Amino acid sequence: MLAQAQIPLRPNLNQDRKKATDNPRYQRTFRLEFKKTLRTVYVVGTVLKVNLNRCAPPGSKYVSVQCSPRVQYRISPPPAENVPLPIPFNEKTVLLITMDTASEVEMDSKLSVTYYEEKTKEMGKAVIHLTAVEISLDVDADRDGQVERNHPNKGSWVWGPNGHGAILLVNCDSERTYGKRPDSESDEISKVSDLKDMSPMVLRTRGPAKLPEGYKLAMHISQGGAESVRIYRARSTEGINQTLKNLFYSSFIKDYPLVLGSNDLTKEVPYAGGNAETNFYVEGLRFPDNNFEGLITISLSLLEPIAKGFPETPIFTDTVVFRVAPWIMTPNTLNPVEVLVCSTSDNYQFLKGMKKLVETSGSKMKICSQYMNRQDRWMQDEIEIGYIDSPHQRFPVVLDSPRDGGLQDFPYEELLGPDFGYVTRTAHDEVVSSLDSFGNLEVSPPVTVNGKNYPLGRIIIGVAFPTATEGRNMTKVVQEFLWAQKVQEPIALFSDWLLVGHVDEFLTFVPAPDRKGFRLLLASPDACYKLFLGLQNDGHGQAKMFDGLGAEEEITVDKILSDEKFRAENSYVQSCIDWNRDVLKRELGLDDDDIIDLPILFKVVEENRAVAFFPDMVNMIVLGKNLGIPKPFGPKVDGRCALESEMTSLMKGLGLSCTYIDDFVSYHKKLGEVHCGSNVRREQFTFKWWNLEM
Amino acid sequence: MLAQAQIPLRPNLNQDRKKATDNPRYQRTFRLEFKKTLRTVYVVGTVLKVNLNRCAPPGSKYVSVQCSPRVQYRISPPPAENVPLPIPFNEKTVLLITMDTASEVEMDSKLSVTYYEEKTKEMGKAVIHLTAVEISLDVDADRDGQVERNHPNKGSWVWGPNGHGAILLVNCDSERTYGKRPDSESDEISKVSDLKDMSPMVLRTRGPAKLPEGYKLAMHISQGGAESVRIYRARSTEGINQTLKNLFYSSFIKDYPLVLGSNDLTKEVPYAGGNAETNFYVEGLRFPDNNFEGLITISLSLLEPIAKGFPETPIFTDTVVFRVAPWIMTPNTLNPVEVLVCSTSDNYQFLKGMKKLVETSGSKMKICSQYMNRQDRWMQDEIEIGYIDSPHQRFPVVLDSPRDGGLQDFPYEELLGPDFGYVTRTAHDEVVSSLDSFGNLEVSPPVTVNGKNYPLGRIIIGVAFPTATEGRNMTKVVQEFLWAQKVQEPIALFSDWLLVGHVDEFLTFVPAPDRKGFRLLLASPDACYKLFLGLQNDGHGQAKMFDGLGAEEEITVDKILSDEKFRAENSYVQSCIDWNRDVLKRELGLDDDDIIDLPILFKVVEENRAVAFFPDMVNMIVLGKNLGIPKPFGPKVDGRCALESEMTSLMKGLGLSCTYIDDFVSYHKKLGEVHCGSNVRREQFTFKWWNLEM
Repeated sequence: MLAQAQIPLRPNLNQDRKKATDNPRYQRTFRLEFKKTLRTVYVVGTVLKVNLNRCAPPGSKYVSVQCSPRVQYRISPPPAENVPLPIPFNEKTVLLITMDTASEVEMDSKLSVTYYEEKTKEMGKAVIHLTAVEISLDVDADRDGQVERNHPNKGSWVWGPNGHGAILLVNCDSERTYGKRPDSESDEISKVSDLKDMSPMVLRTRGPAKLPEGYKLAMHISQGGAESVRIYRARSTEGINQTLKNLFYSSFIKDYPLVLGSNDLTKEVPYAGGNAETNFYVEGLRFPDNNFEGLITISLSLLEPIAKGFPETPIFTDTVVFRVAPWIMTPNTLNPVEVLVCSTSDNYQFLKGMKKLVETSGSKMKICSQYMNRQDRWMQDEIEIGYIDSPHQRFPVVLDSPRDGGLQDFPYEELLGPDFGYVTRTAHDEVVSSLDSFGNLEVSPPVTVNGKNYPLGRIIIGVAFPTATEGRNMTKVVQEFLWAQKVQEPIALFSDWLLVGHVDEFLTFVPAPDRKGFRLLLASPDACYKLFLGLQNDGHGQAKMFDGLGAEEEITVDKILSDEKFRAENSYVQSCIDWNRDVLKRELGLDDDDIIDLPILFKVVEENRAVAFFPDMVNMIVLGKNLGIPKPFGPKVDGRCALESEMTSLMKGLGLSCTYIDDFVSYHKKLGEVHCGSNVRREQFTFKWWNLEM
Repeated sequence: MLAQAQIPLRPNLNQDRKKATDNPRYQRTFRLEFKKTLRTVYVVGTVLKVNLNRCAPPGSKYVSVQCSPRVQYRISPPPAENVPLPIPFNEKTVLLITMDTASEVEMDSKLSVTYYEEKTKEMGKAVIHLTAVEISLDVDADRDGQVERNHPNKGSWVWGPNGHGAILLVNCDSERTYGKRPDSESDEISKVSDLKDMSPMVLRTRGPAKLPEGYKLAMHISQGGAESVRIYRARSTEGINQTLKNLFYSSFIKDYPLVLGSNDLTKEVPYAGGNAETNFYVEGLRFPDNNFEGLITISLSLLEPIAKGFPETPIFTDTVVFRVAPWIMTPNTLNPVEVLVCSTSDNYQFLKGMKKLVETSGSKMKICSQYMNRQDRWMQDEIEIGYIDSPHQRFPVVLDSPRDGGLQDFPYEELLGPDFGYVTRTAHDEVVSSLDSFGNLEVSPPVTVNGKNYPLGRIIIGVAFPTATEGRNMTKVVQEFLWAQKVQEPIALFSDWLLVGHVDEFLTFVPAPDRKGFRLLLASPDACYKLFLGLQNDGHGQAKMFDGLGAEEEITVDKILSDEKFRAENSYVQSCIDWNRDVLKRELGLDDDDIIDLPILFKVVEENRAVAFFPDMVNMIVLGKNLGIPKPFGPKVDGRCALESEMTSLMKGLGLSCTYIDDFVSYHKKLGEVHCGSNVRREQFTFKWWNLEM
């Protein structure tokens, strides 16, 4: 079997292998033993590096090398040209061995080194039997939805359109509809459809039918990785097509054994033999957070046996890196898919108004029943619907607030399901306040700030002044979660001046055809005073607010304008909003022309905190070009509400249509409005988060 | 007081202020109220931005502005040239107000806006009284040891020689010698000398003797920051010089009240009045770790009063950022300062040898008494001495291993002290194994790997194979600490093949005059077999190891070479070391010529793990050009130990001098050698860690 052919002094290593011989990443130190025959498995693409002096017998001065046809070698430093065999060697002489293709049978190749005392006086040989295999652990490192073969950068993760590195989803949806829980909480796959939520990973091997005795393959992750990931293997090696075919035949299979998880950091995986692909499915278990950056490394090693009782040596390791997809919020500028509202004993009129608006906007409406909401109507506050995205799968994910009102069970019971994920953060040793409601969690449209792009916008939350010795805050667990997602870097505003304390009480964003593609709308007592002074000036001082609205005492424009205390309260409110205005301009890169002041008044009530005086028009629902705005019941001029006229006129310039929804009794009087009482699932960004330049 | 002078339509804002007017970072939205006089404090360098339309009375069409001499303003969009006063305005007209210098008395400046119905028909004024102050929270953001004035980038942190951002030390030394504990554990300053370990921070203010009523300054940090930092204030405002003077007069002072810490995230700080500097001292409390990146933000805000019961509004905030200095290890290539060894009942000879070597190297020797070490002689294993560094202070810091042998109290009791810090990590719910000893924690000299510079070298630890289902590891708490320091990115080797399991059993680094400035020395059974075969070949097969050493049975070279089992054991050991050799070459960017193989044999004992067969020469102490090497007691040729000859010859080429120290009975037989039994405090790198390009 050993080819005795004369060995070329300048062996023709092909170019592919050249890289491996020069790159220490792929070199393995290998030992020969004089007068012994060793064996090893060689991985195509690597180099075996043998120091010829190490095992040389005393007195040996020359060496010659012989090998079978599939084996190539190179001697370094190279002997002088035309020196006949055997050649002299010294303590630095090394032999670099490679093979081009996988073996078809075990040990089908050999190489021997013959040592000589004198050029013609042979002392003996050191022999090695070789089995060549190809091994590649593959993922979708180029993010095109396909698991390519052996991506050169699969072992690292870089952001951006020219970046690389595979992506993992937290498997936080539930394939089951009954007895459900997020799929990531179970360590078995009960439905083939669940595989879609996992990242495909393929082990590609080529070689003899089986590995030489004692050699095996092992997959392994680090201790930190085990908390973040689970890996399943498809028992069949017939590939994904077969798997998808199964989908139609069986909805409940047990053909995907768990390979790695919290109990197993390393496990043997079968070597399939021949030219094979073994499919693995990688399941993300947790979102990036304070103590988890989101990166996960998975390795596959070829193990060489030593002897019973000794650890097997990993002689080749291939590594891939995943990043867990962040949870992403959707701003008002994205089109609505579904509007969520609560049905309560007293909100029939409101629901009717909403239904019409939703129909106009072409989206669906989902009504949460009284049984489920337990009279908690604040659909905005219990949940925030975002999404997770990867090249192979994307789905909406609801972030459940630690608020936990009557709606507490709604997100888990009614939203979680197939391709609808669920995540929550639980406060420990922390006070949960009204600021933890997600009316206090919004997101801006895409912006550019001092040259830095935020193509997914920036998250906005409300807190107390950092200088306040007492004040309410959003819980640390939720804040840390939001900051850790990284791709929509949050901004903290001052919302503790409000009794309810939510940013949606004084700001919203609407789409615009010009400038940055949106406008920031801010509640503005100054704008309202200006409007009312104008009315008074034009002789409408006796026009009444809340005209004919039984639920509230009517009040004239003159009366409002003459109330100095009320004026002072609104001056205070304006200064609070102005403070936020300055932060928003700075952090979102806005000019004054990007902002529209809406005429809205507040009153200061208990705890010296403010609530809206009349329905807070900024607390609107934005459905494409259709705005659902709390009907303000402002003073009427020529039969038309002056506040509505102003609002409609301001929005008309942006091509937006205003619908005023009566939420006075069922929401406004309970300290919320249209936005507080609704939620919207929106289309996802076309921009891919991994294309961010970080 | 209000200057009635005609206002220039194109006011001559000076160039310094230009930046502020264009940069939204420094703009504050300010509201005027028609027919009212408001007041505010203006911070020099910022811009007050007033929308002139907001408070305009109904019917007003023109506006004029008047101001006292120190006030400048600009109208935007600018009125057409040569338009006489008053000028027309619309809803977008804004007034930008600045002042060049601080006020000398409160409210010494004014600005008024007059509104007109027609050009000559005045309607009334809106007036603002202004007090200008200068405020700057300053740190050593340019890292030159001086707290410069208002560094433009003090609010961010960037690595590298062109980077910026201040540096903070963990105050982990102890100013006290008796009843001591790390200074960071106490929230008061008991000695002025402790201030040296903190980062200076200066609040520079200029303005009237006191702020207008209700205005105040507050310093604040985030919740995360409070776990990482404490801030003290010098009661005196006379500056650091005065403080240093105090040092000689008083060693125990209480003049440094705590401003911020875990109980106070925000606190008022005094406004000193006039042209003042208030000194603060910032104390780091924790090292970077898994859940703490090391960055800390400190802010100083000017608060404006609203009314009793309302939160004061921060109208100006200045922010500085610190990074906590990482713990840095010192490789063998740095010169020794002090050598630490234990005195035991049986190591007199060893101590004598060490003492001579230490004297030769010009360093000091510190002997840990039997009372303190309780017969635990493994000085290498209980501690690792590194250092922390900042532009203003640096000192050594001992990392105390969770090993906790007889030497457990030594680092705290005998090393911790003035300018000698202490840090430890405690294992919770984790098995502490022999791999947690710091003979298993080393650091390479500076290297460059594939173009990436590691000017502080790379940390090296030993663990089990990642593919091992059972095996010993270094505790997660220590590993996480090491990785979090970032500046000496660790490498994990395979050391679990050794019974004791420490990387110092098979590798060390020595200085070299050429190539990369060092050599990696590796234990090599192959090199020893080669040497012994050569001896046999030269007729010295009957030369004996352990010759005349009563403590061990003598054995001939022939006998050793004929023992096939022993040969196989050493083949296994060589393959383990070769595995590490390949990792080290790859991760340190080494060539074979950077590595020297030392002739050392091992034997496989209990648990199929290896121990050194004769004193393990690689387990040496490196003191500059002097090496203290375990005396190997090898076979003698012509009266000279062949192993010593070989070793001396290998080192001679590097200009290194070998001293062989007899550690046979007192260390080797107890499974350790010279390196295990000693520790070295070394000079610190001249390279500054903050100049790393990350």
